[in-house]
Amino acid sequence: MKALVYQGPGQKDWIEKEKPGIEKPTDVIVRITRTTICGTDLHILKGDVPAVTPGRTLGHEGVGVVEAVGEAVANFKPGDAVLISCVTSCGRCANCKRQLYAHCDDGGWILGHKIDGTQAEYVRIPHGDISLYLLPEGVDEEALVMLSDIMPTGMEIGVQAGHVKPGDTIAIVGAGPVGMSVLLTAQFYSPGRIIMIDMDAARLELAQQFGATDLVQVGAEDVVARVLEMTGGRGVDVAIEAVGIPATFDICQKIVSAGGNIANVGVHGKPVQLHIEELWIKNINISMGLVCTNTTPMLIKTLQSGKVDPARLVTHRFALGEILQAYEVFGNAAREKAMKVILTA
Amino acid sequence: MKALVYQGPGQKDWIEKEKPGIEKPTDVIVRITRTTICGTDLHILKGDVPAVTPGRTLGHEGVGVVEAVGEAVANFKPGDAVLISCVTSCGRCANCKRQLYAHCDDGGWILGHKIDGTQAEYVRIPHGDISLYLLPEGVDEEALVMLSDIMPTGMEIGVQAGHVKPGDTIAIVGAGPVGMSVLLTAQFYSPGRIIMIDMDAARLELAQQFGATDLVQVGAEDVVARVLEMTGGRGVDVAIEAVGIPATFDICQKIVSAGGNIANVGVHGKPVQLHIEELWIKNINISMGLVCTNTTPMLIKTLQSGKVDPARLVTHRFALGEILQAYEVFGNAAREKAMKVILTA
Repeated sequence: MKALVYQGPGQKDWIEKEKPGIEKPTDVIVRITRTTICGTDLHILKGDVPAVTPGRTLGHEGVGVVEAVGEAVANFKPGDAVLISCVTSCGRCANCKRQLYAHCDDGGWILGHKIDGTQAEYVRIPHGDISLYLLPEGVDEEALVMLSDIMPTGMEIGVQAGHVKPGDTIAIVGAGPVGMSVLLTAQFYSPGRIIMIDMDAARLELAQQFGATDLVQVGAEDVVARVLEMTGGRGVDVAIEAVGIPATFDICQKIVSAGGNIANVGVHGKPVQLHIEELWIKNINISMGLVCTNTTPMLIKTLQSGKVDPARLVTHRFALGEILQAYEVFGNAAREKAMKVILTA
Repeated sequence: MKALVYQGPGQKDWIEKEKPGIEKPTDVIVRITRTTICGTDLHILKGDVPAVTPGRTLGHEGVGVVEAVGEAVANFKPGDAVLISCVTSCGRCANCKRQLYAHCDDGGWILGHKIDGTQAEYVRIPHGDISLYLLPEGVDEEALVMLSDIMPTGMEIGVQAGHVKPGDTIAIVGAGPVGMSVLLTAQFYSPGRIIMIDMDAARLELAQQFGATDLVQVGAEDVVARVLEMTGGRGVDVAIEAVGIPATFDICQKIVSAGGNIANVGVHGKPVQLHIEELWIKNINISMGLVCTNTTPMLIKTLQSGKVDPARLVTHRFALGEILQAYEVFGNAAREKAMKVILTA
């Protein structure tokens, strides 16, 4: 089969590789029908994630069709169309029993990281009964691919951890795919005002189409002063960081109101300076974490009921065999006006 | 009347001052019967709290007897014995209506800060109906003084914000009066293991008497390594910072487990380095804030029912007129083995 393989920092190839087989009774082999590329894959390619070793097939998102199941698998049979969760969970360790699937003792984020991933014609999914979802009928497959990672990430780590409530004023710093997922899922909880903050005017315009009520462009204006002015000096109820650099975290700590929440969704590579000398008295909360995908069943229902359409995040489409070209586009997202790309087998 | 007055950095005096009178219809004048000194008073005396100007009577804790009430006061009459909350709240602003009393538009922590405080023979309490509590009969007055500030601070900002749960392993960094209040109130929620961390052996011994199950002495051992070893490498469910310096915050971020909480109770004067490059993936929560005293009625009931005895925190007793001597003892707490001092009028 063909697979997109990491070959060391800056190196990747679309090469012939052995098709995966059942290794454990709980495994499911899935033939990929659609997959995508995540910002995390770009981080890996830069060499930022040392746990990924050369030869690893990348990718942790996708939908497909069950090809084979291990003998302990009860929920799926060959031919079933399935959604692949970016987080693998055994369902039986202490962390799984508290829904902390991201920290599963025999899983977590391992696809395209510690084991071969979804940017291939076939993928082996450990603990398939728990880590796969049957595709509902009549739902757009492209939309479902967004449920592998970015939609639950936005929902759990941004919206739910940030405790977005009806009527709240919230700010989302970063209008990339994950920031947009926060924007889409935040609306389930009816915030009164959603301030989108980014340096890219095109992304801000898209955010407005997706439901942002206010736009603030980094570089064009003093972001903190503008947000404080918009909120009568009070700040926002929830500030959501969706970039992963000190400057954007800093915006969040300067615009959060007393009694408010900072929800960090961004993946950081450096420490940040926490202004606890000013924040200690403000009764705030700062949350951070990797998606657990425990909202996936809920998100599937929101798709079925038409409450959200994450296919709106898809800007570019390629055949799976054109994945190197897709990486080129996604890696130059601003220039290409790319949000999410879909690869179809 | 006599009052302990801040006279600028490093300067205080026990001097004759005009007795306070009713200024607003919601005011209550209280004759102080018992008060105490807080670590915050020492910060003020160092000049660390610029909002406190020379001439200000210090103190935000105490019990007393109602001397006079404004015409809008409904809950109290002269002669009533009352507990004074360190936080004044109007009960009618937006923040009060969400129980965020620390950020009351016409209150918050103002006693001994922005208005004259409780280290005096009389004190004026604004919004007396909401900021005072009738003393329950048959409860030790010294214990009740601990309910003005440190017990609700430990309970709300440490235990409740940290989400201490039955069976949890928690660590409290700092065995001063507030750390000890966390220790006492944490036990309401039945954590399985309470690790107390401090540099002072005598305080650690006292913590053990108060219910700590494990002691770790800063300086004598590698605190982080020891706590990780004690928890099988996993870390603690809740790490509570009760000092207010970067080094102790750092211990907390190194010993918190995946899915855990850091509850910051300490008052900080400097930023801290937040290791978000390691913590972003750990699904943790960091809380911080000023006490709102919304647990005061609950704490009064725990005193009445004998569930906790905060009078155990009192190590030294003085007459109110000996307050300068009491400051001397409290200001050298380690040498004097002092925890809380009580001043009785």
